[in-house]
Amino acid sequence: MERTERNLSMLTDFYELTMAGGYFENGRAEETGIFDMFYRKNPDNAGFSIFAGLEQLIDYLNNLSFSDEDIDYLREKKIFSEEFLRYLRGFQFSCDVWAMEEGTPMFPGEPIVIVKGPMIQAQLVETMVLLTINHQSLVCTKANRIVRAAAGRAVFEFGSRRAQSYDAALLGARAAYIAGCAGTACVMADRDYGIPALGTMAHSWIQFFDSEYEAFAAYARLYPTSCTLLVDTYNVLSSGVPNAIRVFDEVLKPMGYRPNGIRIDSGDIAYLSKKARKMLDDAGYPDVKIVASNSLDEYIIRDLLIQNAPVDIFGVGENLITAKSCPVFGGVYKLVGVERDGRIIPKIKLSESSEKITTPHFKSLYRFFSQESGKAIADYITLHSETVDVSDGIEIFDPVATWKRRTLENITCKPMLKQIFRKGICIYHSPNIYTIRANCLAGVESLWDEEKRFEFPHVHYVDYSQALWNVKNDLLSAKR
Amino acid sequence: MERTERNLSMLTDFYELTMAGGYFENGRAEETGIFDMFYRKNPDNAGFSIFAGLEQLIDYLNNLSFSDEDIDYLREKKIFSEEFLRYLRGFQFSCDVWAMEEGTPMFPGEPIVIVKGPMIQAQLVETMVLLTINHQSLVCTKANRIVRAAAGRAVFEFGSRRAQSYDAALLGARAAYIAGCAGTACVMADRDYGIPALGTMAHSWIQFFDSEYEAFAAYARLYPTSCTLLVDTYNVLSSGVPNAIRVFDEVLKPMGYRPNGIRIDSGDIAYLSKKARKMLDDAGYPDVKIVASNSLDEYIIRDLLIQNAPVDIFGVGENLITAKSCPVFGGVYKLVGVERDGRIIPKIKLSESSEKITTPHFKSLYRFFSQESGKAIADYITLHSETVDVSDGIEIFDPVATWKRRTLENITCKPMLKQIFRKGICIYHSPNIYTIRANCLAGVESLWDEEKRFEFPHVHYVDYSQALWNVKNDLLSAKR
Repeated sequence: MERTERNLSMLTDFYELTMAGGYFENGRAEETGIFDMFYRKNPDNAGFSIFAGLEQLIDYLNNLSFSDEDIDYLREKKIFSEEFLRYLRGFQFSCDVWAMEEGTPMFPGEPIVIVKGPMIQAQLVETMVLLTINHQSLVCTKANRIVRAAAGRAVFEFGSRRAQSYDAALLGARAAYIAGCAGTACVMADRDYGIPALGTMAHSWIQFFDSEYEAFAAYARLYPTSCTLLVDTYNVLSSGVPNAIRVFDEVLKPMGYRPNGIRIDSGDIAYLSKKARKMLDDAGYPDVKIVASNSLDEYIIRDLLIQNAPVDIFGVGENLITAKSCPVFGGVYKLVGVERDGRIIPKIKLSESSEKITTPHFKSLYRFFSQESGKAIADYITLHSETVDVSDGIEIFDPVATWKRRTLENITCKPMLKQIFRKGICIYHSPNIYTIRANCLAGVESLWDEEKRFEFPHVHYVDYSQALWNVKNDLLSAKR
Repeated sequence: MERTERNLSMLTDFYELTMAGGYFENGRAEETGIFDMFYRKNPDNAGFSIFAGLEQLIDYLNNLSFSDEDIDYLREKKIFSEEFLRYLRGFQFSCDVWAMEEGTPMFPGEPIVIVKGPMIQAQLVETMVLLTINHQSLVCTKANRIVRAAAGRAVFEFGSRRAQSYDAALLGARAAYIAGCAGTACVMADRDYGIPALGTMAHSWIQFFDSEYEAFAAYARLYPTSCTLLVDTYNVLSSGVPNAIRVFDEVLKPMGYRPNGIRIDSGDIAYLSKKARKMLDDAGYPDVKIVASNSLDEYIIRDLLIQNAPVDIFGVGENLITAKSCPVFGGVYKLVGVERDGRIIPKIKLSESSEKITTPHFKSLYRFFSQESGKAIADYITLHSETVDVSDGIEIFDPVATWKRRTLENITCKPMLKQIFRKGICIYHSPNIYTIRANCLAGVESLWDEEKRFEFPHVHYVDYSQALWNVKNDLLSAKR
């Protein structure tokens, strides 16, 4: 495990610095602010999203500091005082942070990261909190759709070359693995994060040799234990598959190895995979797998399986690594309160656009599960100071259509936010990636199938406690 | 300028390594291969794209090496020989590389990067060539559309928080600047690449103070030389703009400063900007600029300007930084020939999908310009060994519809590929970013308006020399 430590403290919007300078110069830097990260809409109009990126956010917060070179650069802007620059040079993160655990299904409007601490600090981290969580949550959410479409068949992440730069390739592979992908083509993701990487050959390998047969034979001789042959360089059915079978017979069999598979990267995958499957079966290779990889996504995979395409492994590239159908995760980071003399003063942002109104106050988030089915029934947002007791059932109501009320009984209640930092010290131990992946799959399993439909899913209940609803309603009334 | 050097050699698809091992073990590692990077389709069905990312590609190739830790990691895969691992440990890049210059308009089917050298090396760099050029070309191409829509008004890149991870924020800001953006919100892009960064305040600044007026006044006192106030936290017209004007009058005027502007981040920008403009003008601030920033892209900006929205500066976030409408640049990297005894043996990749057929041979690329208008008339792909003389005019023909012939006269001919590496040594001096940006704008200016339409643009002529056409046609006939 060799990871390059990078100091990303200057990867921030300029206004975080002007505001930080502003809090500082106004003598208000150390007042306590509370910020929520939340998002308004699931990508692809889905029923839920998946939280990811916490490990990288922790790395960033642990390494947050400003070097002499950073300070020199800022000094040249000629708008910051030497006192403020001295403050930045000695910056010590001291906030409290709560967050969901990686791999957790989440819903619009929920606090997914809460930062509470000196205003100047809680403000400064905004850009990186959003950048880090938005990206990996986006890819994890998309990859999980693709994994679900594959219905138990393996999905491999093959998208590095089309990723939106280097970290997107590396951390995208990480997010895809958390989502349930079986592995990646990206070597660095294996080296740095332990994500199984694999790969065999490109068309250039085949073209380089004087014939397809020679190219296959050379590969099989060298890598007999992991022999998957790319069969579409010239013609899948008249050349690729017959040559692959000859090599399986003439090279691998004498060496005592079973072949792994063939890969089809163009043409009509449904048609070609059926024909190829029959040819392989007839030749005595019913166990040899068919890998398909050509601009796949969850819809094409679903359709291929409806058409009984005998594909065993899907390699998914650009549509996964960029979340092409909806390549933005729209998380935002908003001030929800300040603390004075131990009391929270809730803050709200109104807006010309009503969907941009925020939910104020220092909050907690719970998820209710049916004791009978184990399924997640509803999420419940409360004031942080509230305790939730579900032993006698609990009445919940829709925060907009408040007459919609339901009493939930025989449920368990799970707090969904963990404290990650206490006064700037990380108190959370990130699970390893295999545990995160298992947690993710279990979390998705806990959702109703109705919420997992690709189109027009059921909307998960995300309700407020009465106390929280009162706070928001009072602030809205007062501003009117 | 403090840039973190990162060794990205292991950011590669696993199959590059299995193939590299294969060339090595077959004793063919040092045979000369020729690879083209090209792409098949402009994003957003546009008429052209813009080449970017060369500086980062040069950095990667200059730093290409495998550490002891990398070798240990690869050894554990138990499929590579010690001889091959020793080769990797001592890896020395020795290829020739040609590429377009950054900021150059390019067209589908053209070689934009050519790598020629030992097969093992030219293969190994595939993933990073594509990843690097695909990403920045994507963002540069999209950003230029947005810049053109703004028709001379300034466009700032504001997308870091929605970028697909860290490099996408940083290098996306770089690509956007090359495309003609006036600057960025990203501090690191300023520190590392000299791209002007700016920013003032978020809604949290306003919310933190007890009133909008106080928040504006505190900001104006501290940053009187760069005072742009965000006016949509509560209500743009009844609160934000009146408070801004009061602060301009009561705080800035006594200090002797003119305000810079106001920013509107929600609501209907056309309506609000007109009303706000009038209020500012009436208050004696006709020079104060209006900045708009809310999910803008080239289409919304075009429509706002059609509706005469008096916006002076556009801040564009997620739609630019992710190229949201088409977030993948589909560059590919294909073997087009091998060299034996000084002779090129052209290689072709056929495919079930006819658009995936490649153009073989070691090639050059030229652009013809009208002497009269200075405009680019056609691009011309030749064998590398050909010379092109346009002094007596030249006949070109469509490589598919070969009966479509045109004789071009009174033209100049510009070679579009520069040699970047000679035997592994970089012989190209990257221009500074301001020169690249100027070259980009001049390159786009050289295109016909008809090719710059957002929808259904004229298709630029990209024709083959007769010799190249013959090579391709012969290979296609032979494989049939």
